[in-house]
Amino acid sequence: MNTYQRIVLAARPQGEVEPGHFRLEAVPVPVLREGELLIRNRYLSLDPYMRGRMNDARSYAAPQALDETMIGGTVGEVLASRHPSYAAGEHVVAMGGWAELTVSDGTGLRKVDPAAVPLSAHLGAVGMPGMTAWYGLNRILALQPGQTVCVSAASGAVGGIVGQLAKQHGVRAVGIAGGAEKCAYVVDELGFDACVDYRAGNLRDALKAAAPDGIDGIFENVGGEVFDAALARTNPFARVALCGMIAGYNGEDIPMRNVRLLLANRIMLRGFIVTEHLDCWPEGLAELGRLVASGRIKYRESVSQGLASAPEAFIGLLKGRNFGKQLVALA
Amino acid sequence: MNTYQRIVLAARPQGEVEPGHFRLEAVPVPVLREGELLIRNRYLSLDPYMRGRMNDARSYAAPQALDETMIGGTVGEVLASRHPSYAAGEHVVAMGGWAELTVSDGTGLRKVDPAAVPLSAHLGAVGMPGMTAWYGLNRILALQPGQTVCVSAASGAVGGIVGQLAKQHGVRAVGIAGGAEKCAYVVDELGFDACVDYRAGNLRDALKAAAPDGIDGIFENVGGEVFDAALARTNPFARVALCGMIAGYNGEDIPMRNVRLLLANRIMLRGFIVTEHLDCWPEGLAELGRLVASGRIKYRESVSQGLASAPEAFIGLLKGRNFGKQLVALA
Repeated sequence: MNTYQRIVLAARPQGEVEPGHFRLEAVPVPVLREGELLIRNRYLSLDPYMRGRMNDARSYAAPQALDETMIGGTVGEVLASRHPSYAAGEHVVAMGGWAELTVSDGTGLRKVDPAAVPLSAHLGAVGMPGMTAWYGLNRILALQPGQTVCVSAASGAVGGIVGQLAKQHGVRAVGIAGGAEKCAYVVDELGFDACVDYRAGNLRDALKAAAPDGIDGIFENVGGEVFDAALARTNPFARVALCGMIAGYNGEDIPMRNVRLLLANRIMLRGFIVTEHLDCWPEGLAELGRLVASGRIKYRESVSQGLASAPEAFIGLLKGRNFGKQLVALA
Repeated sequence: MNTYQRIVLAARPQGEVEPGHFRLEAVPVPVLREGELLIRNRYLSLDPYMRGRMNDARSYAAPQALDETMIGGTVGEVLASRHPSYAAGEHVVAMGGWAELTVSDGTGLRKVDPAAVPLSAHLGAVGMPGMTAWYGLNRILALQPGQTVCVSAASGAVGGIVGQLAKQHGVRAVGIAGGAEKCAYVVDELGFDACVDYRAGNLRDALKAAAPDGIDGIFENVGGEVFDAALARTNPFARVALCGMIAGYNGEDIPMRNVRLLLANRIMLRGFIVTEHLDCWPEGLAELGRLVASGRIKYRESVSQGLASAPEAFIGLLKGRNFGKQLVALA
């Protein structure tokens, strides 16, 4: 094995992402220097935030550089190590990017035990999506038993965990998802109290029926009309954890119409990025790990096979075609 | 004096408020019962929130009832009292409404000393508008010296205090106001570092020049395009105190376009109503009273004469024709 495959950003999309914005390359396997380790990536995580990075726009992170390996979270196995803290055979979560192999100096790595939960779960329920759910629910919404949380993208990697964690705390969980199949999964398998299909029309009335006592917390993964509909049902002093704005990743404006309710209901809203709150991760991951291992938190994965499948899988994710956490299984 | 004058809500506006939505009436002076006092109102405060109460819509407060005295804050003198805590000649702030006389059972009254600051100031800088500025700035924005606050309606009763309090704490104060005259007042008399005229066009570029290091806190009194322009200049972890949405008081939607920035800049936003935080009032009013008495906080008033002038004065307020705190001087 003298070369490995990676995918770089070939061009910045102006609107929708297309396969031609990516380029698959074979590049030489580097020689390890002192203090480095080589990781064979087993799974690559595909996430909506990547769309934002593809723009050359002001955001909370630097844009993805052209002709460089696409950014992405990975979990894999240490193949070789010249780093004192890592040994061949260990498993690590890394920002390894869209690539079969990654060289690391150890920065930002997290060792994981593949015996406790499945390896891929460290990119989902016991990884960044799980922690996003945990942080937003516990540190921003902080709801009381008997209150109601409304979760958009409820069948997704983050949303599904939000509702299940909420139920553990005695909070009523109402999901919003696209299509009857996803809604059935959210209620029947994940145990939400209700789920509203935003594609069925009549979102506001359906939400009223699903949250008869109003909404005390919104975990917002989507933005746009879905967010407006949830705001319309908020109770006084409702709180909003804002973690995703997928509707705007193509650069278009997402007007929000119920701004007046932010005042009328004295709402507290906070946008957050979970990687800025690493101090919470040990506590959160330990809780999520226990809940996944004991089967009290369930999740679903969409796994595409091989690095070359990543662009189409990512485009599908942006269009809501995935069902559960979108992963790419690598060699 | 067997009758006094009051103004009632005669009809609910569908769009703009017109004089015909109000009706001036002469009603009999009631006979005081045990536990009541009679107040001669000297000044009536006119405030944007009244527009919201005129609608029959869901809000943080019950709608103004038709054919009842219009709601409003007043300051006046006790004419007669059968209440053990109040004596004739004392001065009180009350929710006396659009009326020359008010009968009260003492609920919600606040005694004031007319020697410390002018009587009318208790409806402005040392009253609800001042406390709104104080609470939003100190309890929501909580800025550090050297940071920048952006204040809309900066020449108004609330906005003017926000900037002056901010300057006391070493915070850079940037105002937004309508017209060159108001902007000159905000900078030259109130001491803001800069003020942008939203009517001059090119709001975003002007704001960029006025806040070269970006905006760390927004004290939002207006909503709509002005709010969007301020959001566009926020720094990461900016905070927003949302206290007014005058652009929407006619019931139309105020779309907000920079929703994405709430996430990208991890913004914390909170809508608030200062009367729900009465625990802060003694501390805040004491500070505001000292600052006004010593001349370190300045304010301006627009005073219309006589109760009959209230509807036109209120309509002018909604159209931004007032300059400083809008009051009605009563008999």
